[in-house]
Amino acid sequence: MNSLPGKTVERLSEYRRTLLACLEEKRNFIFSHHLASRLHITAVQVRRDLMLIGYSSANRKGYDVKELIETIGGILDPDDGMNVAIIGIGNLGRAVAGYFKGKRSKLNLVASFDNDPQKVNKVISGVKCYSYDELEKMIPELNIRIAILTVPADYASEIAEEAVRFGIKGILNFTTKPLNVPSDVFLEEYDMITSLEKVAYFAKENTI
Amino acid sequence: MNSLPGKTVERLSEYRRTLLACLEEKRNFIFSHHLASRLHITAVQVRRDLMLIGYSSANRKGYDVKELIETIGGILDPDDGMNVAIIGIGNLGRAVAGYFKGKRSKLNLVASFDNDPQKVNKVISGVKCYSYDELEKMIPELNIRIAILTVPADYASEIAEEAVRFGIKGILNFTTKPLNVPSDVFLEEYDMITSLEKVAYFAKENTI
Repeated sequence: MNSLPGKTVERLSEYRRTLLACLEEKRNFIFSHHLASRLHITAVQVRRDLMLIGYSSANRKGYDVKELIETIGGILDPDDGMNVAIIGIGNLGRAVAGYFKGKRSKLNLVASFDNDPQKVNKVISGVKCYSYDELEKMIPELNIRIAILTVPADYASEIAEEAVRFGIKGILNFTTKPLNVPSDVFLEEYDMITSLEKVAYFAKENTI
Repeated sequence: MNSLPGKTVERLSEYRRTLLACLEEKRNFIFSHHLASRLHITAVQVRRDLMLIGYSSANRKGYDVKELIETIGGILDPDDGMNVAIIGIGNLGRAVAGYFKGKRSKLNLVASFDNDPQKVNKVISGVKCYSYDELEKMIPELNIRIAILTVPADYASEIAEEAVRFGIKGILNFTTKPLNVPSDVFLEEYDMITSLEKVAYFAKENTI
């Protein structure tokens, strides 16, 4: 199968999260318009995304929740799991580590990196923290493919470049510094100030 | 002016961040294609967005960086500033608070809320922490319009509902729980697991 559009991949992840919540509520079937309304999108969008991954087996009761979770997992999840490291283990790094706890996931948090001597060689949020000097050794040794970048913005470019040189194939950049990476590395950037300015803009419209 | 599309608002925020970085580098002019390439988008997109806000005064040297920063500020920023609270001051809440430090911004972080007795009535990350019971009193008293929601997912719906009832007009939801809000409240949701699953999907494609 060809690569799916990035937005479809995001929505598949959201569908799965919603479907898992359905399972917890003991709902075994769901209609496309229910799935859609929980995510504030249209049922057409849901059906189009599922068509893209070749899933069309809704019956009179709707989609089979378990079956759809498995189908989405078959698309999104790496077969053998994939190892992740958090680079920069301050408040944000620790918060991100918290998201991994107790999640059924094929993404394994296996290490963190920081240069604070108080942190290096300690176990923080469940994983061992290594120094930045050890990126070269530990990325291949632990087969780390994905880096979550939560370092201060000033170091972001330098550290990302090293991480890529030593084998990282995907970066989730939480710093405010936009990065450049080679074309065979996938980069996703998130700047919370942008989200916040968007909320402020529309909140202002609502207040007037 | 009518409301701009959400994606345009996000890009305006990103343009401003990039332009501020230019100023620090003592660059006073920038071409649309340079601005575009720093953000991995097309120059056409940049020009279209700036046309939407009525800005078209590029000269031979490109856009005047200071002037464009001011123009974007005139669109995005609330005239009198806007007060923000962080609800849930764990690791993520503290990391978010850190983003406010030293930022020139019309968005003022004025309070946090939490139910941990170790935190209530203390100053954390520069602002006073109140208990959830005080939402009713403090939201109007401090004129808080925007809530950044970083509580555990289990409380998210309940706390968001209260915040809205007491006057919040915009919510940035960092919990994994999708929310429903009235139509006069703007809701922006961010789930980092979705970003991470997207990175994993494309990193997997790059690895094969």
